Amino acid sequence: MPETRLDIARIRAARRLIHPVFLDTPLFRCEALDPDLGCAVSIKLETANPVRSFKGRGTEVIASLLAGQAAVCASAGNLGQALAWSGRGRGLDVTVVASRFAPAAKLDRIRALDATLELVDGDFDMARERAADIAARDGIRLVEDSLDIETCEGAGTIGLELADAAAPFGAVLIALGGGTPATGVGHVMKALAPGVEVICVQPLGAPAMTLSWRKRRVVTTDTTDTIADGVAGRRPIPAVLDDLLQVADDAVLVQEASILAGLRLLLERAGLVVEPSAALGIAAILEDRDRFADRHVVTIVCGSNVDIDTYRRWVGSPLP
Amino acid sequence: MPETRLDIARIRAARRLIHPVFLDTPLFRCEALDPDLGCAVSIKLETANPVRSFKGRGTEVIASLLAGQAAVCASAGNLGQALAWSGRGRGLDVTVVASRFAPAAKLDRIRALDATLELVDGDFDMARERAADIAARDGIRLVEDSLDIETCEGAGTIGLELADAAAPFGAVLIALGGGTPATGVGHVMKALAPGVEVICVQPLGAPAMTLSWRKRRVVTTDTTDTIADGVAGRRPIPAVLDDLLQVADDAVLVQEASILAGLRLLLERAGLVVEPSAALGIAAILEDRDRFADRHVVTIVCGSNVDIDTYRRWVGSPLP
Repeated sequence: MPETRLDIARIRAARRLIHPVFLDTPLFRCEALDPDLGCAVSIKLETANPVRSFKGRGTEVIASLLAGQAAVCASAGNLGQALAWSGRGRGLDVTVVASRFAPAAKLDRIRALDATLELVDGDFDMARERAADIAARDGIRLVEDSLDIETCEGAGTIGLELADAAAPFGAVLIALGGGTPATGVGHVMKALAPGVEVICVQPLGAPAMTLSWRKRRVVTTDTTDTIADGVAGRRPIPAVLDDLLQVADDAVLVQEASILAGLRLLLERAGLVVEPSAALGIAAILEDRDRFADRHVVTIVCGSNVDIDTYRRWVGSPLP
Repeated sequence: MPETRLDIARIRAARRLIHPVFLDTPLFRCEALDPDLGCAVSIKLETANPVRSFKGRGTEVIASLLAGQAAVCASAGNLGQALAWSGRGRGLDVTVVASRFAPAAKLDRIRALDATLELVDGDFDMARERAADIAARDGIRLVEDSLDIETCEGAGTIGLELADAAAPFGAVLIALGGGTPATGVGHVMKALAPGVEVICVQPLGAPAMTLSWRKRRVVTTDTTDTIADGVAGRRPIPAVLDDLLQVADDAVLVQEASILAGLRLLLERAGLVVEPSAALGIAAILEDRDRFADRHVVTIVCGSNVDIDTYRRWVGSPLP
């Protein structure tokens, strides 16, 4: 059993707090992708729910615990939307702090779900600081993605579903930003399916957690430069890195061109609109076909919240 | 209990023959669509599986019964792909007859799944004739969509899942072509959730079954003219019409412009790539907002197999 902050029994218990609309998501072989990638690809699809990302799994747990109270979170967009959704039905007063550069679609949905949205003139890590200030000022709960164990254990329920999968697979590709799904799914894999390689994938333009994992100490960066807005953090959280070191078999960095190619492949071969973070796994295969050749690989498609005009530009040119 | 050829006990039993990858598909509220449509919309998503349509539910039942034998079917593309998938794992030798004008993506997938593909220089109803000839010549089973009760009862398992839904809804919108999901889902709704209005939606450019339903006798057309290739039939089957008369509360015809608008809305608001048949429900709401105002409506997103370049043209211009 991996030595992290997470606990399998609590992850199993978390399932009972999570609305079924976020659970038991599709897991299916997508043979149309195989020829391009040189391996057998399965997709775990986390976008067919009311908030179009996996984040509801964690926010359902948190909102269950905080019902009737107030909370604030920083968000790249998906956590905020999910917390707003989970909070709305439970009388949880939600404030979300986000970058004003976040995709408008994500910000619009947060507002539509009746959360208070505060924008900062900076990036996600500046939003984190502001959210902490608000929590201190107002004396309300600060929800911190990947630091709060419920976010990781909520994401870990994806791992339970993967571990139960009928068809064996050799590796799971997980988008890496702050480390929520990587530590959550990674913990469950190591506990219940230790033969599955846990590979985290981060953009070369936002490499802080990967660099930290490699050096086994927190490495921060001054800036980020990636279209993968959902994973663009600069300041890894030490406790999350500690967990990641226990459960990740590898952390790889991919180029922007590969992320774009991944977006296009998922659209053209699988008919899936996804956000760049959700294409990281495909990008990793594209960059290292030999590693995955003839293996069965699961990639978690973690979100689909895109600004459609931007998305049209990303996928505008057909595949060669 | 509606008096059709279908049977609830057999539909429940069918679930046990169907690979789980086709069952318990996502059903979720999509609030981002509500403002455009003036009602509460939920999506039943049948595209997140290996064949990107609901047809696997029926072909799993058929292939279970025919394991080790040979079968031929006519198909607009999705049935053939699904029968090829279901047959491949069961030693069922599958021949699919399709129009050479069917989407290349559908034809390519049928070939990739090891089925024999024969093309006719005509439409779906010509493919039906050819498939019948092949079955007679070779003495093999002719699988006829919507006439073979397994196809309808397989589709009926969608209805079981809708009837079990936690949130009550007032109407279900079902694409209408030959009548497979309409009679299957319709039968289950009338049996288990009789308060739900069953509304079938067909393109104005391929109206044969709707005209037949209205006149209560088979009406054929000489041609079809619609982008919704999956429902473009000219010759309704009498036994299927009889069933449809028992379970459909309404059958409506929609214009091509509305289907295009539905495709765009599902892309831009819901992040879903769908084929035109799967946008018929949204098209119906767009054409009659008053009818659906403030109601909770489920639309079955039945397939997503598109030629991507054609799809790009359909959704190329942003919504106004």
